[in-house]
Amino acid sequence: MRAVDIIARKRDGAELTTEEINFFITAYTDGTIPDYQAAAWLMAAYIHGLNHRETVDLTMAMANSGERLDLSDILPVSVDKHSSGGVGDKTSLIVLPLVAACGVPVAKMSGRGLGYSGGTIDKLESIRGYKVELSPAEFREQARQYGIVLSGQSANLAPADGKLYALRDVTATVDCLPLIASSIMSKKIAAGADVVVLDVKVGLGAFMRHIEEASQLARLMVEIGTSVGQQVVALLSDMNQPLGYAVGNALEVTEAIECLHGGGPIDLREHCLVVAAHMLRLARKNQSDYAMSECLSEAAHQLDSGAAFEKFRVLVKAQGGDVSQIDDPTTLPQARIIETINARHSGYVEQLNALQVGAAAIDLGAGRERKGESIDHAVGLSVHKKVGDSITAGEPLFTLYANDEAKLARTIRRLDYTLVYSAVETAPLPAFYDTITAT
Amino acid sequence: MRAVDIIARKRDGAELTTEEINFFITAYTDGTIPDYQAAAWLMAAYIHGLNHRETVDLTMAMANSGERLDLSDILPVSVDKHSSGGVGDKTSLIVLPLVAACGVPVAKMSGRGLGYSGGTIDKLESIRGYKVELSPAEFREQARQYGIVLSGQSANLAPADGKLYALRDVTATVDCLPLIASSIMSKKIAAGADVVVLDVKVGLGAFMRHIEEASQLARLMVEIGTSVGQQVVALLSDMNQPLGYAVGNALEVTEAIECLHGGGPIDLREHCLVVAAHMLRLARKNQSDYAMSECLSEAAHQLDSGAAFEKFRVLVKAQGGDVSQIDDPTTLPQARIIETINARHSGYVEQLNALQVGAAAIDLGAGRERKGESIDHAVGLSVHKKVGDSITAGEPLFTLYANDEAKLARTIRRLDYTLVYSAVETAPLPAFYDTITAT
Repeated sequence: MRAVDIIARKRDGAELTTEEINFFITAYTDGTIPDYQAAAWLMAAYIHGLNHRETVDLTMAMANSGERLDLSDILPVSVDKHSSGGVGDKTSLIVLPLVAACGVPVAKMSGRGLGYSGGTIDKLESIRGYKVELSPAEFREQARQYGIVLSGQSANLAPADGKLYALRDVTATVDCLPLIASSIMSKKIAAGADVVVLDVKVGLGAFMRHIEEASQLARLMVEIGTSVGQQVVALLSDMNQPLGYAVGNALEVTEAIECLHGGGPIDLREHCLVVAAHMLRLARKNQSDYAMSECLSEAAHQLDSGAAFEKFRVLVKAQGGDVSQIDDPTTLPQARIIETINARHSGYVEQLNALQVGAAAIDLGAGRERKGESIDHAVGLSVHKKVGDSITAGEPLFTLYANDEAKLARTIRRLDYTLVYSAVETAPLPAFYDTITAT
Repeated sequence: MRAVDIIARKRDGAELTTEEINFFITAYTDGTIPDYQAAAWLMAAYIHGLNHRETVDLTMAMANSGERLDLSDILPVSVDKHSSGGVGDKTSLIVLPLVAACGVPVAKMSGRGLGYSGGTIDKLESIRGYKVELSPAEFREQARQYGIVLSGQSANLAPADGKLYALRDVTATVDCLPLIASSIMSKKIAAGADVVVLDVKVGLGAFMRHIEEASQLARLMVEIGTSVGQQVVALLSDMNQPLGYAVGNALEVTEAIECLHGGGPIDLREHCLVVAAHMLRLARKNQSDYAMSECLSEAAHQLDSGAAFEKFRVLVKAQGGDVSQIDDPTTLPQARIIETINARHSGYVEQLNALQVGAAAIDLGAGRERKGESIDHAVGLSVHKKVGDSITAGEPLFTLYANDEAKLARTIRRLDYTLVYSAVETAPLPAFYDTITAT
């Protein structure tokens, strides 16, 4: 088998065989196939597409390209969730302890943020001492002992995906549904997930701008997971505006803690309850049939009772974090400058552009433009109004948390265009647009 | 300007601007754009194509990527020819001295052979001492002093084309008309040609198998050349069977010398006369109108008078070659083993597969599969029958010239399938299928 022949077949729109896809991915992973051949193949796949069978094969080839996590001796069911990335998305910080508090153990690997999309691991590093890099043995032992672990992703998990993802970024082959879907699912499969709840964001601050394409991506991922024996549900959730109020690492941890105490923004709470309930329902599917409504009320109870927060304490402590900081979030990293922007007009919020809010957080130093850049955990912003809210002139719209005057000034200018007023009443945005299950 | 944006535009089928193409080629030549980005771009260009304007821009960008030869102070008109490559194609060895003998000076750079397609430079190296690498100063001085020079190609002529060509070879983006046409024409433009006669081979032993695609390629190259002010004619010539009888380096030089003495195979003589006549006619177009018939008879006269051979002697001597070898071609490298394959049946030749004959020559060591491999100048084969000829059982079909018994045995087996007999009379193949001029 020769790489150039496989490239030529995809170039001509042919369906590749399982053997061809396995050969290509294995040889690319071990460096036998160089980047330039993979780049030509990616472009051909981008333009001609991959059918369902090819996409599943690509997913499995990438999942098998490195180590595969197997926690079946520790967890009865391995439950995972994935967010396609959004602004203010601190869902994992809440949902993981919440699900664990409901008696379903969770052992998850998460990523770092890039661009306007934040990363769970960055947020957790706001907590002094929290160790994100665990050895495989540490990861397993913590899962066994505490029923909850939340670490950074092992470098050897689906390494083919890592290489291809980096290459796609510089060869204009990122926004291609089969490539996106196989990239996400290969990591979930390599991480050993039996159950996956996919949180596919759609809107101004999401990778997917339109419900139609988000829906296609969600359906494709559900199909892939189902094909390989996973239980998968995909939710299409709104990312036209930030999730909750807080954007920025320590600020989001603080908001997550509020939520874990039964408080916090109502949209965030609703979002987390739905994600958690789906995880619970699927995790228990093999035991007996739980209705969504039961799972929802169980999860709500665990938030309100403090059990979810208690599980978060267990997590932070187990991974070496300073628990006193989550007991008193005012001791988390604090910005030096706090400035509030007030409304100049009265009216209603028609749009609160999540992309602009995300960019503002990057401006302040809360995110990174390129991999490997350092971030400032203290900075970020809070929004005080969401779409559908009424505004009275003089009310606060944003609170900015900054450590640098120049960055603050730039951010203030950017925020001028972030909130669109309406003179007439506007409707709030829904939390979810659709739920996609295996057919 | 960013490479990834240019890739994305071509990926989406957009027409690239001149600035984008110049940026991409310049940055790829200097290494700022890596191979993997160029590979993705090539695949997008392969699939979506390049329009006429883009193709001309790509050609000029590649032509301008290195030094550009300017012989306008030495030659009244710079006349070039190009063959798309075939088996037994020793045309340049004959046509260049022939045109020079007609009073039109020629200064040409040629390539080495690859695969079944031989290279003029390899053939010339059959002659002891012939120096194929000339400095720019030597090249110019010889053109000025003798009106004839035939050297290897300068490494810094259209270096972007050299890089892209190597990359196309391993990314399944070779057989794409705009990329092929711009590759060929960029070198002709960089070499300073005012007049170009393109010899586009079509048939079993050619890169182009079908007249339709060869015709498209020819038309595209004529259009490119015309767009940048060249006088260009393209000939579609047969490559279903070898040109002439001899295939292999010293064997082809010997046959070329026969032709330069007014003899040699009739198809080779006709081919060379037509190519030379077009070169003469276009070279003189600005002075007065010469008819093709006049150019043809003038060229035939120079072959028959010995003037063309005399010019070949001047060329060989000027470039340090041993003239005694061309005066007595039996002193050129000779193979140790000579074996003749005779006809087993009587009948007519229906097919003499040029690709198989070319492969046989490679088997014997006359050609190379990969760049940089060494070749044996002595070996090769002669065909004794061409399509349309009648055969009597026992007559010689092929004479093989070998230096290795194992290679000889393999070649004999291959030749079993090379000649197809017919019981009924067959028509000879035409020398040319079409002549394409600027419209």
